[in-house]
Amino acid sequence: MAEQKKFVESITPRDQDFTQWYTDVCIQADLIAYSNLKGFMVIKPAGYAIWENCQKELDRRFKETGVQNVYMPLLIPENLMKKEGELVNGFAPEVAWVTSGGTEPLTERLCVRPTSETLFSDFFAQDVHSYRDLPRLYNQWCSVVRWEKETRPFLRSREFLWQEGHTIHETAKEAEERTQQMLNVYADFLSQELAIPTIKGQKTDKEKFAGAEATYTVEALMHDGRALQSGTSHYFGSKFAEAYDIKVAGRDNKEQYVYQTSWGMTTRIIGALIMVHGDDSGIILPPHIAPIQVMIIPIQQRKEGVLETAAKIAESLSEYRVKVDDSDRSPGYKFSAQEVSGIPLRIEIGPKDIAAGKAVIVRRDTREKIECAIDELPAKVGEELERMQKEMLERAEKHLEAHTFAAHNTEEFEENFKGTKGFVKAMWCGDPACEEKIKEKYNVTSRCIPFEQEHLSDVCVCCGRPAKKMVYWGRAY
Amino acid sequence: MAEQKKFVESITPRDQDFTQWYTDVCIQADLIAYSNLKGFMVIKPAGYAIWENCQKELDRRFKETGVQNVYMPLLIPENLMKKEGELVNGFAPEVAWVTSGGTEPLTERLCVRPTSETLFSDFFAQDVHSYRDLPRLYNQWCSVVRWEKETRPFLRSREFLWQEGHTIHETAKEAEERTQQMLNVYADFLSQELAIPTIKGQKTDKEKFAGAEATYTVEALMHDGRALQSGTSHYFGSKFAEAYDIKVAGRDNKEQYVYQTSWGMTTRIIGALIMVHGDDSGIILPPHIAPIQVMIIPIQQRKEGVLETAAKIAESLSEYRVKVDDSDRSPGYKFSAQEVSGIPLRIEIGPKDIAAGKAVIVRRDTREKIECAIDELPAKVGEELERMQKEMLERAEKHLEAHTFAAHNTEEFEENFKGTKGFVKAMWCGDPACEEKIKEKYNVTSRCIPFEQEHLSDVCVCCGRPAKKMVYWGRAY
Repeated sequence: MAEQKKFVESITPRDQDFTQWYTDVCIQADLIAYSNLKGFMVIKPAGYAIWENCQKELDRRFKETGVQNVYMPLLIPENLMKKEGELVNGFAPEVAWVTSGGTEPLTERLCVRPTSETLFSDFFAQDVHSYRDLPRLYNQWCSVVRWEKETRPFLRSREFLWQEGHTIHETAKEAEERTQQMLNVYADFLSQELAIPTIKGQKTDKEKFAGAEATYTVEALMHDGRALQSGTSHYFGSKFAEAYDIKVAGRDNKEQYVYQTSWGMTTRIIGALIMVHGDDSGIILPPHIAPIQVMIIPIQQRKEGVLETAAKIAESLSEYRVKVDDSDRSPGYKFSAQEVSGIPLRIEIGPKDIAAGKAVIVRRDTREKIECAIDELPAKVGEELERMQKEMLERAEKHLEAHTFAAHNTEEFEENFKGTKGFVKAMWCGDPACEEKIKEKYNVTSRCIPFEQEHLSDVCVCCGRPAKKMVYWGRAY
Repeated sequence: MAEQKKFVESITPRDQDFTQWYTDVCIQADLIAYSNLKGFMVIKPAGYAIWENCQKELDRRFKETGVQNVYMPLLIPENLMKKEGELVNGFAPEVAWVTSGGTEPLTERLCVRPTSETLFSDFFAQDVHSYRDLPRLYNQWCSVVRWEKETRPFLRSREFLWQEGHTIHETAKEAEERTQQMLNVYADFLSQELAIPTIKGQKTDKEKFAGAEATYTVEALMHDGRALQSGTSHYFGSKFAEAYDIKVAGRDNKEQYVYQTSWGMTTRIIGALIMVHGDDSGIILPPHIAPIQVMIIPIQQRKEGVLETAAKIAESLSEYRVKVDDSDRSPGYKFSAQEVSGIPLRIEIGPKDIAAGKAVIVRRDTREKIECAIDELPAKVGEELERMQKEMLERAEKHLEAHTFAAHNTEEFEENFKGTKGFVKAMWCGDPACEEKIKEKYNVTSRCIPFEQEHLSDVCVCCGRPAKKMVYWGRAY
């Protein structure tokens, strides 16, 4: 018990201090360690294994839509970076510059990639010649560097891992469709694998990606009511094509510029996973993404037959990701370890269970205990994993619904941001000045103009002029 | 035929100019493109897919030995880099330095990782406390930067992709065993998946990794008789542990330093793959690693039933990595495209074949044509892929054997490096001065002291003093 207590005491209760709870959980669940360098973290095995599963699921989905993986250089010459003005202006304050290579200073500074539109554009310009070469549907898995001032594990760090997709197309329509398609891939992945429901929509001009004509986003709601941008998809029109001269001979034999997209998802989604599903005992991993789905914990493991039975059970569950904790620790310690690291199911098996031919399954999220005959475990475990996956999504959906508020007028808008935490839907005139004013006054940002529009009133909650769109507002990470 | 010719003409014959052939093939097989920045290349889909398969096969093998993946920062503070003197001296001439982040100059330069011993060591120092925490068996997949002067695609570039394994252990013996174990993993992977036989051995002190007590290597022989270091595994003893203070409480309750290893394999092996197996028509991919194993090429595809049959055949071969080339191009063009990109088998299927209920399988390496009943294709394709894999390894083994020469005395040693191309085995006194002398005189380097020693004579081929070891010599890439 003493050992078990140690684990619990080291995590700040979630409702007492969510920020501290988050940090505690990242450390206690062994996901990361801080490095010597501010804003750069070490992703430890338990954290990286989650990312590997995310990669596997995303990569499969990308490839099903015809996307191919490539690799672009880490460093970008300054003059190449500067060809498209908006992008460079957007990223200039937060890039890291390499100024010497080997023993000599460089004649031109090189930027450590903060994103690779410039490199892909430069490459596309030499890669395509005819409309027959289109579309090009490329993606890369890599790390990027952005010199953020405030940093937090997974959520905002100076280096993060991600995938960045870059595609070029013959027509604007096709490119726009691809932008939507990839946003749907993200939403589907988040909901089906991470059990995270999202709001799909378009960013306002103020919040869109530097250089994009349109940015689409999937916005998730954390347990504490804050919003997290969880994946974005950008439509560039021909802006980069013009800056980097990406031209092809069209169907009419005339030269034409291509239409371009990019879309990215980062290790930040591990932060979302923690903040949507975690509790006071640690993280809770949805079964589909959990690196270990079932931890078998032998009770009185020195008694004859216990470890053998645990091993046999593990073998019978080989279609799942299963492990036996046969370390020297006490069962209590093992329970805590399994709980803090969010392993969906544990199976307790001791001499009495063996005598009765049964075992106990304990669900991480509900702590529900389910007795099960040993030979029925394979079917039961599969059932429970799927049930847990489904119920985690349902709970997250309910939380999202319960923390989304409609503001029909200015008073309701104000009221919502004082008393409650979550998304507030409200009508907007479309003027960036109102957006700015709301941001300053309530410390909230526009999250998106959702695809599913509602008509809450005729006028903007800020200025009272005629409303054009309904917007989701929230406090972001 | 005109189209087919175009392909063939664009590749310089291998025996006319091997270096040019290599570059031609990298470009024609669509593996890479040159970027705007010297020494940094774009790895295109066909090249990256090969790397993905290598990653999959290596990663599986690593995990089977208990290794876990992690991720360490891209940038290394200068003072951290400097803690171990030999490593920093070894790498100082070839690192890139970041000197500003965001809008401000940094107070301390940051080095773009050329390798991550320093970061892992710094992390291990905080990560382990007791011998019970050992071993730690970590690996990361990432890119590194080394400011090479001469660069060539895959073989030597300023940025390359690799995996770097880093482990710490309680005892020297265990660490040394791990070093050997991972070398064996590399040798097994190269031989079983890439069909590349290697010589396993130890590097001389002159050629070992900066900071290592011992470096082990797998050395492969290219078609032109040059040697390629294809994977290395290092034993560090406690050198880094002392520099970075990686201590644990030992079994006797006293503090002790840990024992450390690292081991790496890079995208360079794609270069090896090309240079061991390729021919005048392009690259040849061993079936186990080929992203596409079978290309089905319909003949007279506009005739009724041809494309349908091709699709049906593809479906029947779904256990393999199979594709149908149903583009508008002529069959001749498609044959060339399949050949240049090294796809192991092609299946030709036209109206006459369909009428006869058969298809023609053509092997990429031997160009052997095999008639096969359509409904027997699934079994036959599996057989042919395995036969090709096996024969490619056998051919490479024969080539290695035929190009490995034993020099029993100085004359034979000289003779071999004049007249022939390949490895020369010869006795060595162990004095680095002789190693240096041989290097200068014959423009060859010691590749390794092979584990399988032979006794070729009693004296060193250089100085005539008593010999200690047999060494493999060769010209390297």
